[in-house]
Amino acid sequence: MRCEVVAIGTELLLGQIVDSNSSWIGEQLALAGIDCHFQVKVGDNPERIAFCLRQALDRADAVICCGGLGPTQDDITRDVIADVMGVALHRDEAIVEKIRAMFEARGRVMTDNNKRQADVPKGASVIAQMPGTAPGLVCPVGDKVIYAVPGVPYEMHEMMEGTILPDLRRRSGETAVIRSRVLKTWGMSESGLAETLEPHLDKLDETGHATIAFQASGIEGLKVRLTVKAADETAADAVLSTEEALVREALGDIIFAVDDETMESVVLETLRRRGETLALHESLTGGLMAMRMTAIDPALDVFAGALTRGVDGHVAAQDDAIALAQEAQAAFGTTYGLAAVTPSNHGDFAPGTVFAAIASPADGQATTVALPGDRRRLRNYAVISALEFLRKSLARNA
Amino acid sequence: MRCEVVAIGTELLLGQIVDSNSSWIGEQLALAGIDCHFQVKVGDNPERIAFCLRQALDRADAVICCGGLGPTQDDITRDVIADVMGVALHRDEAIVEKIRAMFEARGRVMTDNNKRQADVPKGASVIAQMPGTAPGLVCPVGDKVIYAVPGVPYEMHEMMEGTILPDLRRRSGETAVIRSRVLKTWGMSESGLAETLEPHLDKLDETGHATIAFQASGIEGLKVRLTVKAADETAADAVLSTEEALVREALGDIIFAVDDETMESVVLETLRRRGETLALHESLTGGLMAMRMTAIDPALDVFAGALTRGVDGHVAAQDDAIALAQEAQAAFGTTYGLAAVTPSNHGDFAPGTVFAAIASPADGQATTVALPGDRRRLRNYAVISALEFLRKSLARNA
Repeated sequence: MRCEVVAIGTELLLGQIVDSNSSWIGEQLALAGIDCHFQVKVGDNPERIAFCLRQALDRADAVICCGGLGPTQDDITRDVIADVMGVALHRDEAIVEKIRAMFEARGRVMTDNNKRQADVPKGASVIAQMPGTAPGLVCPVGDKVIYAVPGVPYEMHEMMEGTILPDLRRRSGETAVIRSRVLKTWGMSESGLAETLEPHLDKLDETGHATIAFQASGIEGLKVRLTVKAADETAADAVLSTEEALVREALGDIIFAVDDETMESVVLETLRRRGETLALHESLTGGLMAMRMTAIDPALDVFAGALTRGVDGHVAAQDDAIALAQEAQAAFGTTYGLAAVTPSNHGDFAPGTVFAAIASPADGQATTVALPGDRRRLRNYAVISALEFLRKSLARNA
Repeated sequence: MRCEVVAIGTELLLGQIVDSNSSWIGEQLALAGIDCHFQVKVGDNPERIAFCLRQALDRADAVICCGGLGPTQDDITRDVIADVMGVALHRDEAIVEKIRAMFEARGRVMTDNNKRQADVPKGASVIAQMPGTAPGLVCPVGDKVIYAVPGVPYEMHEMMEGTILPDLRRRSGETAVIRSRVLKTWGMSESGLAETLEPHLDKLDETGHATIAFQASGIEGLKVRLTVKAADETAADAVLSTEEALVREALGDIIFAVDDETMESVVLETLRRRGETLALHESLTGGLMAMRMTAIDPALDVFAGALTRGVDGHVAAQDDAIALAQEAQAAFGTTYGLAAVTPSNHGDFAPGTVFAAIASPADGQATTVALPGDRRRLRNYAVISALEFLRKSLARNA
């Protein structure tokens, strides 16, 4: 079973919007065991859209086209699909009423333009999920199918999950599932990872033919992605857990997180389990570290707060960084204080040098790391490096 | 002159990486006056890549293909291009040495795999800009051309700007330039903007045929994009400035920024001009606001710092929000304090209610805004709403 994706909209070609919809759809198709060999972006031009839809139908069993279902004259996806199907459009009065009701609920009046959104190619059906004013469509073409969804991400997601993915699975007769597990690592290069895992690949192969792939992801670390196809979710999970154990044996404590976990969620969770608390001194990182912590700890029960201050942005030595961490620890009365700061004496240190410091109940410790030079990356890497320093320190004193 | 984009990499189809490269390339092509009708994503499969390159060459004068120039067996772009050109690959020993030197500079040893990166199709030339170990290629095919660039964004950008865009402009004979200006607005809906500008569109048309487009951009505001084609940069700027004046006359003070300016850069610049300073009290926004300020004011000469604290995350009334702003103002000794916080008594307020408060030298003032419900959006909108409140307050007391 193959399915292509056609993203429609001149604004996509002009780079005014990044086409993240196709990526998301591609991910869902992969998880459903459906191949996707091509994804195309095309502008609001009827001939070119028709060309793309016909070519995709030639090569694949199904096409998901995304965008161009709005109320303006630019929105021509409905018309082009009718053309490709060789049928006329008819206006679905029930949908007109649904759209009218949505407008009225917001205290607004539906314009005539919006009625165009209720036009449906003959033989096509409207997708039941309709979170916005643009209905999605299921359009049979012979034994193949075109699905049309709006470009608004949450509307598209709802239709994909509610109708399109189940329909594709039914059509494909696919009952197997594909599942991935992502192990996030920090502190080893991609080639280093490959070399370290090399001797274990045979064993990994034996346990269930999971594929293994590396993906450099900046401050989210270097990801090791295990992917497996299995009869059902339970079987897939079993294989992935065996493989994860093998990879952990090989890589050790450079794995800091799994799947949706992040460096900050892991640190906060560790502190929560231990009943300990944390405060930050942010000068170089100016709010960036607090922002990441409060995104997942809104109640501030582990992360107590941050001092965001200048201190001229930098300090002379590791000991001064420890003093800043201790200042935050004292100000908030927490178990730990954490700081990341640049040295003031640039003559003595290479650009990109950062001190990370931890104030512990008993003492303070600091480390020096070398980070990428430009300010934006330096700040982000400083956040992760400081958190990684704390993570490893906590692991040593478990 | 038409140019298509082919993005290569199975990870793009699987949604493991969002293809932002094509968007960026599309934007640069548009600014250079070069049409781009199709952009395609394809996996690491030689037949399918060759198919995409041939089809793009059929339809357009030039193709930029992005990705697949790395050292691993998956990286087959070089081989496929040679195939499409009908030539063999030869190893460029000067490039081998360049790659070897890069490895040595980082204290690492070049592997044999990396030598593959020095393979060049006969008749192709290597792009002079080579910030990483993957050389870019200019590959003539008859009177058309394939450009190959690596998928690493900064490497790709350097090659596009240094070689590919100038080469495309030379080939197209295009001397006109296309320029845009983006006016960012806050506080009016897209249909409201359209209605307000409607009576002025005729006048806008007269002044130089700039096109006008709206683009909803979340917390970056609703953008009004003016685009004009002109003989040169100076002529384009002149038309854009006239049009901007007309749009400003129609929209007034809802325009908060132009082009790369942001809400925070505008607020900081206003304060800097006035010789005034600012401190924040962040509880709801937990570092988010400080992070945005310090990204552009690293020296903290205007933005003094932030108190990131719980206060149970919320307060009873506007007056308490003012007290928090005053606490920050006092702690840092600044001209102003700013706070954004949620009400504690949920019974009395709709979800998404946020108090924004300013502490001024003479007094305090607060406002109540209604924001989107989910926490991530609420935090981000609270930051922008508070800064907008300060921006308007400063404008009133100019």
